Amino acid sequence: MVARYREGVIAPAPLAFSRARDLVTPALREAVDRLSPGIGRVVLYHFGFSDAQGQPTPSGTGGGKSVRPALAFAAARAVGADPSTAIPGAVAVELVHNFSLLHDDVMDEDTERRHRATAWSLFGIGEAILAGDALLTLAHELLIDPPSAERLASASALSDATAAMITGQAEDLSFEDREHVGVDECLAMLDRKTAALIACACKVGAILGGGSEKEVRALGGFGQHLGLAYQAVDDVLGIWGEADVTGKPSWSDLWQRKKSLPVAAAMSRGGLNALKLRELLALPDLTEEHVALAAHLVEENEGREIALRIAGEQLAAALMALGKLDVAPDARRDLEEIAGFITARNF
Amino acid sequence: MVARYREGVIAPAPLAFSRARDLVTPALREAVDRLSPGIGRVVLYHFGFSDAQGQPTPSGTGGGKSVRPALAFAAARAVGADPSTAIPGAVAVELVHNFSLLHDDVMDEDTERRHRATAWSLFGIGEAILAGDALLTLAHELLIDPPSAERLASASALSDATAAMITGQAEDLSFEDREHVGVDECLAMLDRKTAALIACACKVGAILGGGSEKEVRALGGFGQHLGLAYQAVDDVLGIWGEADVTGKPSWSDLWQRKKSLPVAAAMSRGGLNALKLRELLALPDLTEEHVALAAHLVEENEGREIALRIAGEQLAAALMALGKLDVAPDARRDLEEIAGFITARNF
Repeated sequence: MVARYREGVIAPAPLAFSRARDLVTPALREAVDRLSPGIGRVVLYHFGFSDAQGQPTPSGTGGGKSVRPALAFAAARAVGADPSTAIPGAVAVELVHNFSLLHDDVMDEDTERRHRATAWSLFGIGEAILAGDALLTLAHELLIDPPSAERLASASALSDATAAMITGQAEDLSFEDREHVGVDECLAMLDRKTAALIACACKVGAILGGGSEKEVRALGGFGQHLGLAYQAVDDVLGIWGEADVTGKPSWSDLWQRKKSLPVAAAMSRGGLNALKLRELLALPDLTEEHVALAAHLVEENEGREIALRIAGEQLAAALMALGKLDVAPDARRDLEEIAGFITARNF
Repeated sequence: MVARYREGVIAPAPLAFSRARDLVTPALREAVDRLSPGIGRVVLYHFGFSDAQGQPTPSGTGGGKSVRPALAFAAARAVGADPSTAIPGAVAVELVHNFSLLHDDVMDEDTERRHRATAWSLFGIGEAILAGDALLTLAHELLIDPPSAERLASASALSDATAAMITGQAEDLSFEDREHVGVDECLAMLDRKTAALIACACKVGAILGGGSEKEVRALGGFGQHLGLAYQAVDDVLGIWGEADVTGKPSWSDLWQRKKSLPVAAAMSRGGLNALKLRELLALPDLTEEHVALAAHLVEENEGREIALRIAGEQLAAALMALGKLDVAPDARRDLEEIAGFITARNF
């Protein structure tokens, strides 16, 4: 399983991502240019359109992968539509995703994202909260004005996904204060926190592309399973990631005492390792030694293995949901490539 | 002018407020009951439905005045509709208003609101941010599902007002770091930060009540002027308020170095007083003496007088906008009573 994921290291990003970025960026830029200068400054920095001094960046983006736009466009193609029909949905989902990043970074006190200072650490907490609020409001404005049946159905799906995401983030926060979190609880949380919006990206692509109810449901199911697989891999990276870049793992989720999927899985296996792990993560001050030992205990208790197995199962379920649909070969290849790539990163 | 406002102290709250509270509370409660338990706990506390332990409060509300719902219902009556037609709009506007209170309290580091601990000070910053995010999302969900032409027009007006409010709050934050803010800049900021949502309450009442474009525009204009009058009075209370309760003014906006309307007005009058005021508010550490002197300088330079004159002018403009409409006498009386009451409080 690990070997399979390892392949991801050498695989180049599928073309679907760069095509999605080309399609979504002008519309996204147009949307955020509607914001007032004060908020726009923070938002343009966050998206990587400009640097901390407000100067345009050479790339014009901060290197976000455009996962959700790529899924929205591929879903539109999957129901036989031109990808451009999904642009308003792709932009709205990307705005909601970035609203959540801006606010999550404040809550988690994260000072870096994509190798740049986070917005709150540069501009202040108030400014980052407002920038997030503005993106959430903008996302809703975009989809209801002008209204159409498809746009309203998309707005409704997006509201539902946003509400789920907020609930998931609240659950994730509450887990940090708890001694024990079960695997099922953890999966239910990730289903809301991450998978709901990824599913929504697929759904709005299918809805705006004029897909049938069955197609929207199937592509939503694909996205939901894929989102869970993606987050399970991300949770493994949250402990053992960056090893290939820096030569040693960052253990960042353990420093933050996150009850991420590998930790929940390891704790649920019980035994002396789980007891020791629980004790370690409850210590008032963590040292490098504590965290290294915690990572070792999670691995010993198969936390990493279980998380990767769940990722594999969910990826299989996603592809199975897709298999039930009659999809044009090129759209299917796009969806499969995106799915494979985002569940196979960096390790 | 001051004498006129003084009358407000002995005037009982118009019945429109208690009627609005009776009409909006069950629907508001039903809406927030849709939230997940973790977020619901914070929101129910914030609204005063429950106490810090999660137990129902005797009153079932935290004593919010329901200004915006009262305006929405009165606007619906003003266009000849039953007030209940405005319920979804009143709830959505109240949700957006409370989203902004939850986030503003985090940004301003305010520890008390309505004589209770603020949500963030009790539950944490992350929880309060998420509770606000959830209310904003809920407000949009409420108006677009199920959709109708009136509900969508209301949702669109609410999005515009929310965007304006966020921009205004960002401007207000940025003013704290600036030495000088002009009166016009300050008024433009208040127009967005406060007046836009009060205008929106009137507009959605009129829209959901089936009002004509002319009626919606006139009632929106009434609300916009009224909102500015209300905030001008509130800015005076932010310096000299609570004098009747505690025996001495709180000067709270001066402690926070807010460039509120009286301060901006006093600074714009120039002279030695303005120079001294600017120096005082730039001091790294403020003492009680500094703040008392600052309040005195604002008053000497007519900051209080100018703010109250603007309030009076805006109130007159609001009533004039209303005068242009053919409105049933009881609806007109409601709107006038609400306007008089919210611009005549506590001093």
